[in-house]
Amino acid sequence: MMLPPSLEQLIQCFHRLPGIGKKTARRLAFHLLSTEGATTLLLADALREAHEKIRLCTNCFNFAEAILCPICSAPQRDSAIICVVEKPTDILNMEAGGFYNGTYHVLHGALSPLEGVGPEHLHIAELIQRAKTYAHEVILATGSSTEGEATALYIDRALKDTNIKRTRLARGIPAGSELEYLDEITLRRALEGRIHL
Amino acid sequence: MMLPPSLEQLIQCFHRLPGIGKKTARRLAFHLLSTEGATTLLLADALREAHEKIRLCTNCFNFAEAILCPICSAPQRDSAIICVVEKPTDILNMEAGGFYNGTYHVLHGALSPLEGVGPEHLHIAELIQRAKTYAHEVILATGSSTEGEATALYIDRALKDTNIKRTRLARGIPAGSELEYLDEITLRRALEGRIHL
Repeated sequence: MMLPPSLEQLIQCFHRLPGIGKKTARRLAFHLLSTEGATTLLLADALREAHEKIRLCTNCFNFAEAILCPICSAPQRDSAIICVVEKPTDILNMEAGGFYNGTYHVLHGALSPLEGVGPEHLHIAELIQRAKTYAHEVILATGSSTEGEATALYIDRALKDTNIKRTRLARGIPAGSELEYLDEITLRRALEGRIHL
Repeated sequence: MMLPPSLEQLIQCFHRLPGIGKKTARRLAFHLLSTEGATTLLLADALREAHEKIRLCTNCFNFAEAILCPICSAPQRDSAIICVVEKPTDILNMEAGGFYNGTYHVLHGALSPLEGVGPEHLHIAELIQRAKTYAHEVILATGSSTEGEATALYIDRALKDTNIKRTRLARGIPAGSELEYLDEITLRRALEGRIHL
């Protein structure tokens, strides 16, 4: 099908986004062109503005518009507790429940020798320095993938000679799940980490 | 969770698109800000350019950059056959197989008295005039929803007093489906429309 070049280009741009297939990309582009132009321009402006304004928090490397992100600059948050996550989205999930009152540190990735990601590519040095300066506890909340585990292990070792408490998020059975459908690794970890009642 | 305003705004804009939920909108926004800025600006520019350049073909009302869309301006297409569709995306599906060599007419909607969509809101008058001027056949390819059927019926009646052949896409069993899983309306139509072997 011969599409006008600017429409084809818009579809290609949408298609480059994660989880957006060829058909969805087309649907989005056609939807925007079929509606009032305001929506299209609003999205274009929002993209440009976010690109220009968003930078990384100089303390925790979360997204921010100012020097510090909203969490690092909130006086009621306990800056002596640092929760280490791989991605800024992880913070959203942690914050959704409102059960955590400490601060974060975003590594922007996880160690992966196969993909050439070493400690120097992540914000690990900044974490170590920050932790040594004022942290009582570092919660290692990287993923439970091989890369996430390796990253947690690396940071744990780097902080070994300090008095800083190092913790890792508990492994076990997720809420609402039946034993029948759980994999054996999850079950083994849940058994190993069983708690006294 | 407190997000920087420009990031929140970008998420809202994505969330307004069809099929993009809150979580997907967040994922897209965070992805764009986590990658090289070029992708973000490319999408912003593509949106603006498509918005500025894309208009409707003056003949068939498909998306176009010029006065005529690529199909209407292609000399090898048979302009005496007009396939009437509801949306520009419908053309993409028809063209994907490469089995149709006629032209199209995009109504940009279907008749819906409940939602206040009358013939004057669709490009029906232009279709009638175009058909009377040079069409041998008008293929009514509106959807098989109530609105699509009503629209086909309306156009069929409007062209009744002419010599123009009016056809409707065949109803029946879709390719690759088992009788077991088909609804009774589809089956009844397939039976009514059965063909001689």
